[in-house]
Amino acid sequence: MNFPSNIFNSHSKKDGDFFLGISKVLGFKPKDVSIYKKAFLHRSANQKDKKGNPMNYERLEFLGDAMLGTIISKHLYNEVPGGDEGYLTKMRSKIVSRKHLNELGKDLNLIRFVETKIPKSHFGDNIHGNVFEALIGAIYLDKGYKYCEKFIQERVIEPYVDIEQLEGKVISYKSLLIEWCQKQKKEFKYDVYEDNGNDPLKHFGVRLTINGKQVAKARATSKKKAEEKASKRAFFALQHKIENS
Amino acid sequence: MNFPSNIFNSHSKKDGDFFLGISKVLGFKPKDVSIYKKAFLHRSANQKDKKGNPMNYERLEFLGDAMLGTIISKHLYNEVPGGDEGYLTKMRSKIVSRKHLNELGKDLNLIRFVETKIPKSHFGDNIHGNVFEALIGAIYLDKGYKYCEKFIQERVIEPYVDIEQLEGKVISYKSLLIEWCQKQKKEFKYDVYEDNGNDPLKHFGVRLTINGKQVAKARATSKKKAEEKASKRAFFALQHKIENS
Repeated sequence: MNFPSNIFNSHSKKDGDFFLGISKVLGFKPKDVSIYKKAFLHRSANQKDKKGNPMNYERLEFLGDAMLGTIISKHLYNEVPGGDEGYLTKMRSKIVSRKHLNELGKDLNLIRFVETKIPKSHFGDNIHGNVFEALIGAIYLDKGYKYCEKFIQERVIEPYVDIEQLEGKVISYKSLLIEWCQKQKKEFKYDVYEDNGNDPLKHFGVRLTINGKQVAKARATSKKKAEEKASKRAFFALQHKIENS
Repeated sequence: MNFPSNIFNSHSKKDGDFFLGISKVLGFKPKDVSIYKKAFLHRSANQKDKKGNPMNYERLEFLGDAMLGTIISKHLYNEVPGGDEGYLTKMRSKIVSRKHLNELGKDLNLIRFVETKIPKSHFGDNIHGNVFEALIGAIYLDKGYKYCEKFIQERVIEPYVDIEQLEGKVISYKSLLIEWCQKQKKEFKYDVYEDNGNDPLKHFGVRLTINGKQVAKARATSKKKAEEKASKRAFFALQHKIENS
């Protein structure tokens, strides 16, 4: 039997792995996978396109940064009708801060896709945020605005954007809840378990019980975040009781 | 005969005029005209929404600024494959400069729509750019991304974005052309005429003839721009001759 010669070579296996891995992160199949490859090409790899132009993720990062800012702006505009231009600008810069973007990229473990001549251990933290933005740029070019908005909604806004916390009005729902339980002489317990589900990210599940009764459950990419999420859910479920106590 | 009482009152006439005027600027009919009204509401008008939140164009300006940056970024990304992140950033900031946005707003005569308690003559130049950005924000909310992209393409990119000029490679096609004609001992003439067509903007048409033969025509919002545009067209039409002369 004759197989095409590249079926078993490592290049094609690597391409297939990239396609599967990136599809899982995206939640959809790329139309043009080469755009996503570019989103992880570090300048140290010294690659050039057919016309001899240097090829790396920096141009896509420029594009993704702009698009991310736009989607977050729209979200804030709709969520906070009373916020003026200054407020919106301040909140947006908190959400798209370098630190926050690095965290997002790290949670998705995007660095595993990076092509580089430099050992990955030599990179600083910013590589995570940079390729996260480049990935958004790649989605925009490959699939257009709608997919981009959905990705940012699911990967940034839903899991990470809590306006009250960003405003500094609520530091931590966990501490609010613990305080209330202690005042009310109620017993509380956070049970943590690993729960990866179908997600490409490692997830932790948390069950919060008060006086032996489960009041909330939550999943997140760290134990701390899952506890906070469960506490927030419990807080809103119990809000009436808490505010009158 | 009984007419609804508001048919003849000035409020309804004013609303109708706004709808027609803004539709002409947009090139399409608004779905929710109230969003566009907000785009021209100056803070001096002191208006509030139903919940008592201050209502003026500044929030829409925030949104429009972000969207304009994104569309221009995408345009530059596609048009200049060899430009790195620094180049793209620099070119974008030239295109969305305060001065340029003011010019765009002025050309569309957007100030006629502004609702304010301050005499319009007291405003500085920035009002033009501010409401231009707010208008983009309104389109984004009312009709979504696609309409926004089309509007920016037609109203910003096509008439105003010339990458070679922005790069400073070509200062003026008119001066290049005149220089060539003089060297070649050719007679040239720019004929200017008003040509508004169906456009809401005042337009000028220019016919450029060389040795009595028409070589290019162009329309633009000023005489100077139309001459430049016609010269550019003539330049590219004659490029072979010019480069070998």
